[in-house]
Amino acid sequence: MRIFLVGASGTLGRAVAAELAPRHEIITGGRNSGDVRIDLTDPESIRRAFAQAGTLDAVISAAGSVKFAPLEAITAAPLASSVYGIGIEDKLMGQVNLALEAREHLADRGSITLVSGVLTDSPIAMGSSASMVNGAIEAFVRAAAIELPRGLRINAVSPGVLVESMPHYAPFFRGFEPVPATRAALAYSRSVEGLETGQVYRVV
Amino acid sequence: MRIFLVGASGTLGRAVAAELAPRHEIITGGRNSGDVRIDLTDPESIRRAFAQAGTLDAVISAAGSVKFAPLEAITAAPLASSVYGIGIEDKLMGQVNLALEAREHLADRGSITLVSGVLTDSPIAMGSSASMVNGAIEAFVRAAAIELPRGLRINAVSPGVLVESMPHYAPFFRGFEPVPATRAALAYSRSVEGLETGQVYRVV
Repeated sequence: MRIFLVGASGTLGRAVAAELAPRHEIITGGRNSGDVRIDLTDPESIRRAFAQAGTLDAVISAAGSVKFAPLEAITAAPLASSVYGIGIEDKLMGQVNLALEAREHLADRGSITLVSGVLTDSPIAMGSSASMVNGAIEAFVRAAAIELPRGLRINAVSPGVLVESMPHYAPFFRGFEPVPATRAALAYSRSVEGLETGQVYRVV
Repeated sequence: MRIFLVGASGTLGRAVAAELAPRHEIITGGRNSGDVRIDLTDPESIRRAFAQAGTLDAVISAAGSVKFAPLEAITAAPLASSVYGIGIEDKLMGQVNLALEAREHLADRGSITLVSGVLTDSPIAMGSSASMVNGAIEAFVRAAAIELPRGLRINAVSPGVLVESMPHYAPFFRGFEPVPATRAALAYSRSVEGLETGQVYRVV
């Protein structure tokens, strides 16, 4: 398969590439690196990236930013100045726009795999934006799955905090069992190389 | 209790008022009607509404718009011109901003109750915006619940399609068991008059 992997330079993206590269052709995408430059917050950048990547059998996202902030520091605000704006524009709508544009470039029965995360169901302090965005992505995936044409499929991978991220994130995820990126990468393999659609693969 | 009910003039809002009014003081809020005018898409309007409503024991939302559209008609776009923009600005961020501002006006151990809907888990054609937004609301509620101060609580009510809405919505919800608004209203009672927090009350 020809697979476009967005967020290829991140901890998760590198593990996904390592899992899939032995069996498939990986076109790497990233904001500042990779075969193809792509800025998920800019629909025109997404279009250009797909035009460059050519025809694909799978599109994978291991990308998306959200802002972590204590709820007490978050006040009612228009989206442009809201703490929630980044998560909605980047991790949520960036991936949704990636999925929407992917339809035009995927071969029949091709797949789209987005990333959510454990905070959908297991919240942490400072994580309300991440929870909100992850919940939105998972519900979007279930809904988009039933309307995609030509046998196209869409799933989400919802990993717990990565072992590799613990030096940075441990104080926020006390008591959570960290997940090796190699385990999260297996869920991407299951989405891309399996046949299911509308699934959320939880790796916790 | 003094309860601020936003969306009081809608089918669901009227049923919630009927359930709670015999035992509590209801301050009704709406875009074009009610004791207090409130436009959820405008944080300043939310602030003015709370200033007018005074000190409260509960804030309830039975409001929020999303756009229904076939996925094939939705293309990658910036939020301002996206089909998903309305749902994100109105039903999602409108209710989130309502909850954030409510903190300043609720008595200790007061409650916030938002509305999501059955499409979080059970998608329908044309419903990807509603699914996305409902999933976001439910995850936000779980996350906000663990960070709210002073014993404040927050829950969501997730009703199925209402019996009263079937004349309009039946073609979109074939095979779904419609829910009388009085049953959905009971879930609001449970949120407001119970003691739980971080819950999603599914009425299906």
